[in-house]
Formats: sequence, structure tokens, C-alpha cells
Amino acid sequence: MLAKGLTPAISRGSGPVLCVLLTAASLAAQAPEANVRRIIDSPQFKTATAFLEKDHDRFVRELITLTEIPAPPFKEKQRAEAVLALLREHAVSDVEMDGAGNVMGVWKGSGLGAGGSGSEGRPMVAVLAHIDTVFPEGTDVKVKRAGNQLNAPGVGDNTRGVVLLLSLIRAMSAAGVKTSSDILFVGNVGEEGEGDLRGTKFLLQKGKYKDRIKQFIAVDGGEQSTITTGGVGSRRYRVTFKGPGGHSYGAFGLVNPAYAMAGAIARFSRITVPQKPKTTFNIGVVSGGTSVNSIPFEVQMDVDMRSESCAELKKVDDQFLALVREAVDEENTARSTREGKISADPKLIGDRPCGETPLTAPIVRTIAAVVTAFGLKPAYNISSTDANLPMSLGIPAVTIGRGPGGRSHSLDEFTVVEPKADLQAAQVALAIILSVAGVTGDQEKR
Amino acid sequence: MLAKGLTPAISRGSGPVLCVLLTAASLAAQAPEANVRRIIDSPQFKTATAFLEKDHDRFVRELITLTEIPAPPFKEKQRAEAVLALLREHAVSDVEMDGAGNVMGVWKGSGLGAGGSGSEGRPMVAVLAHIDTVFPEGTDVKVKRAGNQLNAPGVGDNTRGVVLLLSLIRAMSAAGVKTSSDILFVGNVGEEGEGDLRGTKFLLQKGKYKDRIKQFIAVDGGEQSTITTGGVGSRRYRVTFKGPGGHSYGAFGLVNPAYAMAGAIARFSRITVPQKPKTTFNIGVVSGGTSVNSIPFEVQMDVDMRSESCAELKKVDDQFLALVREAVDEENTARSTREGKISADPKLIGDRPCGETPLTAPIVRTIAAVVTAFGLKPAYNISSTDANLPMSLGIPAVTIGRGPGGRSHSLDEFTVVEPKADLQAAQVALAIILSVAGVTGDQEKR
Repeated sequence: MLAKGLTPAISRGSGPVLCVLLTAASLAAQAPEANVRRIIDSPQFKTATAFLEKDHDRFVRELITLTEIPAPPFKEKQRAEAVLALLREHAVSDVEMDGAGNVMGVWKGSGLGAGGSGSEGRPMVAVLAHIDTVFPEGTDVKVKRAGNQLNAPGVGDNTRGVVLLLSLIRAMSAAGVKTSSDILFVGNVGEEGEGDLRGTKFLLQKGKYKDRIKQFIAVDGGEQSTITTGGVGSRRYRVTFKGPGGHSYGAFGLVNPAYAMAGAIARFSRITVPQKPKTTFNIGVVSGGTSVNSIPFEVQMDVDMRSESCAELKKVDDQFLALVREAVDEENTARSTREGKISADPKLIGDRPCGETPLTAPIVRTIAAVVTAFGLKPAYNISSTDANLPMSLGIPAVTIGRGPGGRSHSLDEFTVVEPKADLQAAQVALAIILSVAGVTGDQEKR
Repeated sequence: MLAKGLTPAISRGSGPVLCVLLTAASLAAQAPEANVRRIIDSPQFKTATAFLEKDHDRFVRELITLTEIPAPPFKEKQRAEAVLALLREHAVSDVEMDGAGNVMGVWKGSGLGAGGSGSEGRPMVAVLAHIDTVFPEGTDVKVKRAGNQLNAPGVGDNTRGVVLLLSLIRAMSAAGVKTSSDILFVGNVGEEGEGDLRGTKFLLQKGKYKDRIKQFIAVDGGEQSTITTGGVGSRRYRVTFKGPGGHSYGAFGLVNPAYAMAGAIARFSRITVPQKPKTTFNIGVVSGGTSVNSIPFEVQMDVDMRSESCAELKKVDDQFLALVREAVDEENTARSTREGKISADPKLIGDRPCGETPLTAPIVRTIAAVVTAFGLKPAYNISSTDANLPMSLGIPAVTIGRGPGGRSHSLDEFTVVEPKADLQAAQVALAIILSVAGVTGDQEKR
């Protein structure tokens, strides 16, 4: 209703209520504040709010339960199945796991004005929270509670996002909310690291709803005032350095691929990148070698580069590839190559497109209006989330917050569960989803 | 009789034979050739030689049998028990497995001139052959014979050494040889790699004979002309670099332990070491980090340093530890430590002491005299064997050959079993052991 993609959904129909709606929608396209206000002030929203308040204990309980089910990259299945089982208990239909391992269910909208038979062709709002974490198998994911703080790897990023979606579905159901658009709620895989957005890629490029998703909301940020409208692009490599290897003592003096790799990392650590547009680089994983007393024949490293700017990303990428070559050349000059030279093979393992949803886009203006309506000041952000892909494909997409926490991707990750603050966070997320999906007038008649 | 440690054994007693012996011993201390000649020319040595010739088939049979019992590092027990069972069939007493897993038996000497009651305090010559191999569990150790060549991992290094000892004990027994000193025959564990000489360490530092072993012969070399009188020392570390970790993008700017480690490796790769005395260093294994988009909270590397010279080993070791600290400081200065600093913990995982038995030491002069007596030209060598430890403790120690072979530590390891050459190799080893342990005059009276 608020985004271009939904315009057909409100362009037909008859009767006074719809006329009012149509007018509201037209106004909303210019100024979404009134529409947002109408939704927040509706009795249904108040009922939903009361429900969310009572639902907090369950929210925390589910957060702990799901956090303690490991979901390493590419090994999300156990947690995905737990989310799938939960989805089946919620007011969504067509609950399933897709070919990529995403789990999802459809919140049926009224389809008001959509035309056509059935809901197959109707536009849909996808609301995603990724279920994967960055933490490898064997990481201790036991949640430790200290007052209102829950400490555990992945508890915030993004288990909190997943359980927030579940709580919102329960609230929508309890309040009898009717949305215009169908909403596809997804616990998706493959957001982190080498997952390389494979869950979202499947959803938007191969999945059964790929042609229906016209707006996209990822719940994968922190505070609710932050609206992520830009997708930080990233380039990721696994660089393999190879050499002849040999006995550490007997073959001493031969080139060592670990030295070439260290030379590359040391150079990389010294490059300068702009603070604005934010540009970053990281060596995330190193490995290689067979024994302490053998010169390795192979070592490798995983490298991540990101930028808010496509041009800056290209610059750091070019520098990186050049310094790998330099380091290899240096090692081939420093030691003997009589048994073979060092080579480096940078393999692209991640290519997260950069993209942007303009601040003037209806989805952004609507979300800003919601944030403002709750007395917060919208802060626009550029990040790297599942929303990168739809942004790069021209689908209006935004990433919103799941609530407060910190130290994401570290072993001392935490999230804060404080009933009052959490209620507001949930209200904002709910109002965003409803405002973007549109709420049909008939709820006002109940 | 020939080494300082044995002097008390020949300093007392009476009678003309002993007077002759004393004279011979005194002469031997200056010029061992005559004593060696006397032993080689004795009827007992000729009997032993005839026995060894006939024993060749059994030697080969036991070599195949023992080679085919796997003995990976830290998992030597099965083979050790087989050797223990064999030792029980031989003319040695006090056969046992010690606390480290070494198996051993004592060849009783005459203790002539030792004084005191019993043999508890009498000096002893330890003759060792390590039973462990470098090959991991699951390696195919089936012996394949091609003519006179036996092919199998570990067949030469050092199963051949172990079965040679057994054959020598049989020959000594068959010939009725009487030695002055007790001889401790040992099949020891823990020589290879991360075994870190644990068998020999136990023997010389904790075992029941630790105060009695005054001379030390390791049978762990190739050709009989090679006399290893220097122990290449090694220092091995596993260095763990830790930091606060964090999100590669969100926490960009925090210290990264992979940068500190790379800085250390890059520095290490640029140090200079002398070619003579040979000194080497190596980064053999690197690992760490959890995902491409996380700043690692931990990375580590395995480092090997070796030198023929204790002073040079200490120099490279000191340099290494200093440059690790430098690299850590550099990283803590280059990036933010607001969430924590980088630390490095170098854990010593291998410490093979360097040492040397001077070429002028009686044990070396005696062995050289034996080698020369068999028409070979002594070649002095520096290597890394069980003898390193006694050398570092000031115990006269030498590593001698077990016979020809090649490709040690590789899957295509082989040894050559050729009756004539093997006989000479066994004769040399026997003459070395007898000359070092001393042979009492009473054998000449039989």
C-alpha cells in the first residue's frame, strides 16, 4: 500500500471504506505519517501491544531455547527445524523449509484489490530474520543470564530477530489484525560469512515467491531508531598460498608459503581506508601446514573487505590483490625456489553486492514515520545484511532493529531483555511491518 | 673402562690378569686401538661373528614382524609389548616396561672392581634403539620385499635398530662374552617429533637406572662409518595470539591477532642465521579464526628452531620471543584496544637439548677405533636423536648406525638386508658395545 510495488493492491474495489482507504493511501504516498498514526492508534494495535507485554516471558524463553541450538554457517538445520516447528504453531500458512534451508510461513493478507484468482500473483512483503550465526561447531552457546543481560554467542545476532518475528505473529493473531498484503515471514539461512546470502539469494532468485516479493524487511539491526537503507558491499576471498614444502631442517632455505601469507597480511594491515564512506578489511581465518617440523606446502586465509561505497570497495580490492602478488614475489626472492615457487590463488568466496534504497522511497519514509511516531529520531545507516541483495535487484528493502545488545560475533555477545524497552522495540517493529504491508479498513469496523 | 665414568670399575682388584687389564685400560684411555683390536681378535668375538652370520634369517624375520606392528608417536605400546616379550627370551635380566613405556633388560657385567654390595651403584652403559615411528595410526606398515630391499614405513628408522640389538644380545650370549659394565638394552619410546625424547627423558631423569647410566649409545643412524657426536638442539613453540575479537565491519578498527601473528612471522622470515653451525627456523602450522567476517579472537602458529650450536639456538630463540613481543606491541599500537589488547602466549612444545660429546672423549675415540679397525673411515656427524639429552647432561653419548637404508620419514622408506653387509654392520655395532662396556680378561682364559 505504501510502496510502488503495492499500488495495484489498492487501485480497485468499491464502497466508502475503500474510498477512505484509497484517499489515505494516496496521502500516505506523500506523507505516511497519518497512515502510521492511524495504525498505531487503532484498537487492534493496542490489543497487540497488551499481548506483547504479556508475551515477554515467552519471548525471553524462546530466545534462550533457540540460542542454545547451535546454528553454524551451513549447519543451521537443527535450529531451522526448531523454528519450523514453532512456525507451525503460529497463525501462518504454507509453513515449509525451502531448497536452501530457509523456513517460512505466509501471513495471509486480504489481498484487497489485488484481482486475479487466488493469491498466487499478489505482491508480498518478505520479513526476514536470519537464523545462522558466525560461530563454528563446538562453540559453547549456553546462555548465561546476568540481570537483564543474556550472554551467549548469537543471542543478539540474530536469534533475537527470529524470536521477535514469532512474538509479532502471535500479537498480530491475538489482535485480529488484517493486512492488505500477504507477509512472508522467513527464518533464513546463510546470512553470515561464507553463507554469502545464500538463503536470500534462493528466496529472491529461485524460490516459489521470487516474483511476488515486492518489499523486503530484514530484522537484523540493533536499536529501533536505526534504519538501514544502504547495503555495504563486500568482497571476500580465500587465498591459497602453495609451495614445494619440505623438512624444516633438511630442506631449510626453501620458500615457505606461510611467510608469503604473513607478508601479505602484514601489508594488508597497514593499508589506509576512508572512515567515510566507511570501508573496512579483515583477515578472519588462517590455516595450513601439516607439522611443526615441515615447511608447509599450503596455507590459506579468508579475507573480508567492505565499503559503503562501490568505488572504495573496488579500490581496497585492487590493493589487496596487488599486495598478495607483492608478498609472493618477495618470498620467491628471499629464499630458494629450487624445488618450486610460491604461488597464490585468490578465490572469490563472497561477493555481496552494494546497493541502496533511496531515503525518498515509500518504504523508508514509512519506517521513518513509525520511528518518529514512537518519539525516536531516525538514524539512517548503511550495513551489510540480507537486504543488500534486494537493494541490488531494485526491490525496496530496509533492515530494521531487533532490540539492544552488543559484541556481535564475539564470544561475549549479549542482548538486553528489559520488559519496557523490549515492548517499545516490538511495537516499533510491528508498526513497521503493518504500515509497510498495509492494514485493511475492515479491522476498524470490528 | 674407556670412559671417565667407568674409571672406578677398573680402579681396584688384584692379581696378574687385572694388572694386565689395568695397563690395557690405561693405554686405551690414550689409544683405544689396541684394546679394540684385542676384542675383535678374541675367540669370543669370532664365535659371536659366526653366530651373527647364522642369525641373519631370524634378524630379517624379526625385522618384518616388528615393522608390521604399528608404533605411532604416543602409541608405541603394542610394539613395545612385542619387544618386551622378545627381551624375556634373551640373556638379559630385570626385563620390564618402565613408567614411560620404554622396554629394557640388563646384561649383567662382571662389575669387576666396582666394589660395594650388589650391582645397584655400578656404572652402566645404556644402549638404546627407539621403537616409535613418525607414522600416524592407519599408515600401511606391511613390509614389501624386493630382492634384498625391504620397503615399509619405519622399517629402517628405527625397527632395524631394535632388531639389531636383539641379535647382538643373542650373539653375546652364544659367545659367552663377559663385559665389565652392566649394559642396559632399551627399546625406547618417544624419539620422534612431538614425542620430544620422552622415553630418554624418563630413563635419564626419573627411571631407576638414572644415576647409573654413565655412557650412552643410541642405535639410530645409517651407515656404520657415521658417528654422531653432536646433537642438533631444537626449540618448538605453539604461540597463541589472543584478542577481543569482534565483527569485521561493526568492530573494524579493533586489534586483530592475525595481524600480530603475521607481523611476527614476517619479522621471523627476515632474521639471519649462520649456515655453519647449521641453524634453521620454520613456521610449520598456522590456524585460527572463526569466520571470514569476524575479527579472530585467537590464532596460533607452530614454530620450530634448530641449531648444531647451543649458543646459536639460544640466539634464534631469544630473537624469536622478542619479535613476537614486538609484533604484539605493534598491533596494540596500530589499532584500538578499547575492547581488549592482543596477547601472545608462546608455549614450549618441544625442547630437544643440544649437546656435544667431544671428539676427544674416550667413547668417541673408541668408536672411531672400531670403525677404523673394520676398514671404514669415521665420519663425524651432528644430528637430532635420543643422544641429545645425555649430551646436554654431560653424559658421554654417541649415536651409531643400524645399517643401510633410506627415505626415512617417508612412505617409501626402505632398508637393505644383504647377509654380507649386514654381518659387518652387526660386527661393528657389537665391537662398539663391547669396547665401550669393556670386556673382562677372564674371557681370555676360557
